[in-house]
Amino acid sequence: MTDLLRFDTDNPRLARAAWSRIAEPRDQDAARLIRALGPGPALGWAERAGSMWCDPPGLPAGPGLRAAVQRWAPRIAKVDPRRELDMLGRCGGRLLIPTDPGWPESIAELGDDAPPCLWLRGDPTAWSHPGVAMIGARACSSYGQEVAGSLAAELSRDGRTIVSGGAFGIDAAAHRATLACRGRPVAVMAGGVDRPYPVANTAMLEQVSHMGAMISEVPPGSAPMRHRFLSRNRLIAALATVTVVVEASWRSGALNTANHAAELGRQVAAVPGPITSPSSAGCHRLLREGAVCVTDASEVTELCSPLGAQPSAPESAASLLDGLTPTQARVLEAVPVRGSAELAGVVRGSGLSQTEVQGALGFLELGGKVERFGARWRRT
Amino acid sequence: MTDLLRFDTDNPRLARAAWSRIAEPRDQDAARLIRALGPGPALGWAERAGSMWCDPPGLPAGPGLRAAVQRWAPRIAKVDPRRELDMLGRCGGRLLIPTDPGWPESIAELGDDAPPCLWLRGDPTAWSHPGVAMIGARACSSYGQEVAGSLAAELSRDGRTIVSGGAFGIDAAAHRATLACRGRPVAVMAGGVDRPYPVANTAMLEQVSHMGAMISEVPPGSAPMRHRFLSRNRLIAALATVTVVVEASWRSGALNTANHAAELGRQVAAVPGPITSPSSAGCHRLLREGAVCVTDASEVTELCSPLGAQPSAPESAASLLDGLTPTQARVLEAVPVRGSAELAGVVRGSGLSQTEVQGALGFLELGGKVERFGARWRRT
Repeated sequence: MTDLLRFDTDNPRLARAAWSRIAEPRDQDAARLIRALGPGPALGWAERAGSMWCDPPGLPAGPGLRAAVQRWAPRIAKVDPRRELDMLGRCGGRLLIPTDPGWPESIAELGDDAPPCLWLRGDPTAWSHPGVAMIGARACSSYGQEVAGSLAAELSRDGRTIVSGGAFGIDAAAHRATLACRGRPVAVMAGGVDRPYPVANTAMLEQVSHMGAMISEVPPGSAPMRHRFLSRNRLIAALATVTVVVEASWRSGALNTANHAAELGRQVAAVPGPITSPSSAGCHRLLREGAVCVTDASEVTELCSPLGAQPSAPESAASLLDGLTPTQARVLEAVPVRGSAELAGVVRGSGLSQTEVQGALGFLELGGKVERFGARWRRT
Repeated sequence: MTDLLRFDTDNPRLARAAWSRIAEPRDQDAARLIRALGPGPALGWAERAGSMWCDPPGLPAGPGLRAAVQRWAPRIAKVDPRRELDMLGRCGGRLLIPTDPGWPESIAELGDDAPPCLWLRGDPTAWSHPGVAMIGARACSSYGQEVAGSLAAELSRDGRTIVSGGAFGIDAAAHRATLACRGRPVAVMAGGVDRPYPVANTAMLEQVSHMGAMISEVPPGSAPMRHRFLSRNRLIAALATVTVVVEASWRSGALNTANHAAELGRQVAAVPGPITSPSSAGCHRLLREGAVCVTDASEVTELCSPLGAQPSAPESAASLLDGLTPTQARVLEAVPVRGSAELAGVVRGSGLSQTEVQGALGFLELGGKVERFGARWRRT
């Protein structure tokens, strides 16, 4: 344990690597502590507080933080980031931390949900190009496989990075097509990048790391556990401007990624399919909930352009949208800043269903953010 | 011509029948004149003004009306509504005019675009039940045919009237399925109801007129000309609460019907299909333009009810969920009726993101529908 005191001050890289082992993905207590104290001092404090409680310097310590310290203690006792960095080095990888040039800016939008570091094999600039996440069912149909392949190929030819999860089915079809046309694939792993999962996709994923990048928020040696898949999905969503669900069953994990994308204000698109195919039920569900229907690469590309999305919302808009659900925020943004719009215009502008828009407008009206005059809506 | 003077005062039924021969569908000059003077006097004036111009009594006569009188004159000279009523009678039909009990109220919403009368074979009350228009490509795929058939059958079993255009492809599949399960089919013809078109569908359309109704705005003996098809489409849209496009190519006439439906404030729904099928391209186009994605009969039924709510939901649940957005309703339903749940449980139960759930719970708490105790939530 004495060995760890070193983290207090001098090596944020080692400290962040340690944190990614100590705290499970999306541990916001860890994120807040690191943000407040810096990664090294945070680790030092957590270590000390684990054996004898002391308030963290300059941070309000609630019961949540006490519980977190208990949660972290067993792992802090055993953490050895140098060993994991060695493992990474042996497979040619490198660690990325937020101050590194290659750190993906889009990750910052996750706030306290952002990982402390990323373990990477491949090109750390893969995401500097506009990315499209292409995801979907593992048990996809031949239709889904064909569509994922042709969309990924065409988008790759347009210079888009194709982000996916390395799984069987749609993910693999997207990665393979990207590789086939010498595009830029990015695979976000739920386990360590030293052990590509699923094992049957190892050769493909190794290729992905040569042509693009394979990344993970958990260190080498970590097993791909269920909750890590769910957490991993937010990284896929964050790294892309648009998330395209190619095929998904009614309860597919791809819908979880789509929800993350919507929360992050990213565009969510779904490819329709036969209503007689259960593999498309999740896509149709998304379409009914306001996802954009896409049928070819150009329609996906349209969504990548800044006019389709609102990536650079002005600061005033940020405060305006505070406290709103993603749906409400989207509806408010679809009400023109100057002039007014009919319900149908707000529906079109927001890309949401009429029912959702009506609900949200009612809420926004109660909150004094919009007002109705005649059949039109305007901001107050 | 002297014979026609009789229309001036005494028989609106004959006068409207005459007008439907004299003026092509959507002749708004005729509609305004009939509205201002009544059908008989309007006809008398048009006849006189055709041989020597005189201003219509109490109506501003622009150059449009002068041109209209010239347009009508050749047909007024030859019009013989009694002959056409005889033709209708021979095939067991009847004329409907706006003052008749069977006149479909929804037609009035067309304003000056409404026809002066309807020529009907069958049941004049067919549209007193909530109607669903089911339309689409003539050259449909077997997928489209199958989907149209199963949707029409299920909606018929729910007591919906199925409105379509009697054409090959999707129209015929919808009519046939409706007939097969002894539902209520309505076919709106572009030509006269005495000569069902296309001829190959004659037997089916005769059956439609026995089980439901076959109607047209043009008199018996009229040919189904191209512009009459386009005009006819607005009647299909007007007669239904929801218009469902099952399959349509990129430039299908079904999109014209969908546009009419949207203009009339009716719900427009589209059935998705494979993006590799040109027969679904028009449906996907509609989905991108804001049509509701429907994948089964219950989703169509949802659109029939005025609020978009499920009519079959138990009454207590319906009132509980009244006024909530879909997200809020989903969250409320995930809070257990008995006992309580932690936030995570509600998140899992609703299948929504934590942010959405937190936002919705805050709203529901304000509305007194749920309450917090400790870290748990329960219904009030």
